Amino acid sequence: MIVTADFVVSLDGYLAGPGIAPDNPGGDGAEAIFAWLHDCASWRERQGLEGGVEGPDSEIVREWFDGTGAVVMGRTMYELGAEFWGEDPPFRTPVFVLTNRPQETLVKKGGTSFVFVTDGIHSALDRAKAAAGGRDVDIAGGADTVRQYLAAGLIDELQLHVVPVLLGGGLRIFDGLGAVKGPLEKVRVVDTPLATHVKYRFTKG
Amino acid sequence: MIVTADFVVSLDGYLAGPGIAPDNPGGDGAEAIFAWLHDCASWRERQGLEGGVEGPDSEIVREWFDGTGAVVMGRTMYELGAEFWGEDPPFRTPVFVLTNRPQETLVKKGGTSFVFVTDGIHSALDRAKAAAGGRDVDIAGGADTVRQYLAAGLIDELQLHVVPVLLGGGLRIFDGLGAVKGPLEKVRVVDTPLATHVKYRFTKG
Repeated sequence: MIVTADFVVSLDGYLAGPGIAPDNPGGDGAEAIFAWLHDCASWRERQGLEGGVEGPDSEIVREWFDGTGAVVMGRTMYELGAEFWGEDPPFRTPVFVLTNRPQETLVKKGGTSFVFVTDGIHSALDRAKAAAGGRDVDIAGGADTVRQYLAAGLIDELQLHVVPVLLGGGLRIFDGLGAVKGPLEKVRVVDTPLATHVKYRFTKG
Repeated sequence: MIVTADFVVSLDGYLAGPGIAPDNPGGDGAEAIFAWLHDCASWRERQGLEGGVEGPDSEIVREWFDGTGAVVMGRTMYELGAEFWGEDPPFRTPVFVLTNRPQETLVKKGGTSFVFVTDGIHSALDRAKAAAGGRDVDIAGGADTVRQYLAAGLIDELQLHVVPVLLGGGLRIFDGLGAVKGPLEKVRVVDTPLATHVKYRFTKG
């Protein structure tokens, strides 16, 4: 059981473009970095959609989804996604939502539940680990949340899906990390025409 | 003949670390991103040094060096490097230095000359193209200079040598690029234990 984070980023390191707003959650240009993901058979399957493309990109996404036994996300990501995810969300695991506002757990179809955690990132992670059934805990985002976990040294493996696009602005995954400076162990690089999938392990100092 | 740029960057996109100063030109931690390069047989050969490691990293560096027929660099990079490069600099081609202060051309050993250009980036590039003898023009840096050429859409191919290190701060290659947003064509990815060498071509809109 490890703690993972998987992010789609532009070549210039943005996981969302400029101009983020409630009706534009990925920012301007974000569709260009997510198009390959939304075409993956494995992604579509999780959304209850038919079809899509099989191949190495889809396999990597399937490996990520299947390896995950619990998810942690920030309140903003939850609020932006909840309506889209609907009554049968794609997670199919417990999802721990970081928030300041206590709220009853929401049990959805297909194995997804949303558990609202008000006592911080360490507590949310501990609860996710206990709920993951031996599989990995995935820090799903948004940018602030993953940066907090990175800065606290709580992520074991980070996989970036680098898309050959420049967004020119927006939210960077690597910003204000401070204490996580240093070398990483490169686990795997898989390059496809659509993305370069690079996985790193944080070495414990 | 194309215009190229080749940069060693950390995973978080920095080509120099925090704390840059005249006696610390790469910033804190930079030795960690350049170590693989300084061990390459092809790099050492250009510095007049024996030995070093042959292999895919060294081959990629040799391809870059051998493909270059002229170099453009900023004044700061020139001033920081001049003493280290000495009387037999590693370029072995004409080097066009962007500056506001007119200065006589300096002819060094081994084919290197430093030509000081006071009328802007387009003029420097035109002169470099004319001097390159059909080989490529390489925009050598520093950060400000490569960003200016990127923002003006004057670079055809960009190769990043991504090292599995987080610098956590410093000078990013991608900052304030504005007009160069959009998709790139991925030319080649070569992954080695030391670096992931990714080459992109800017597609003309």
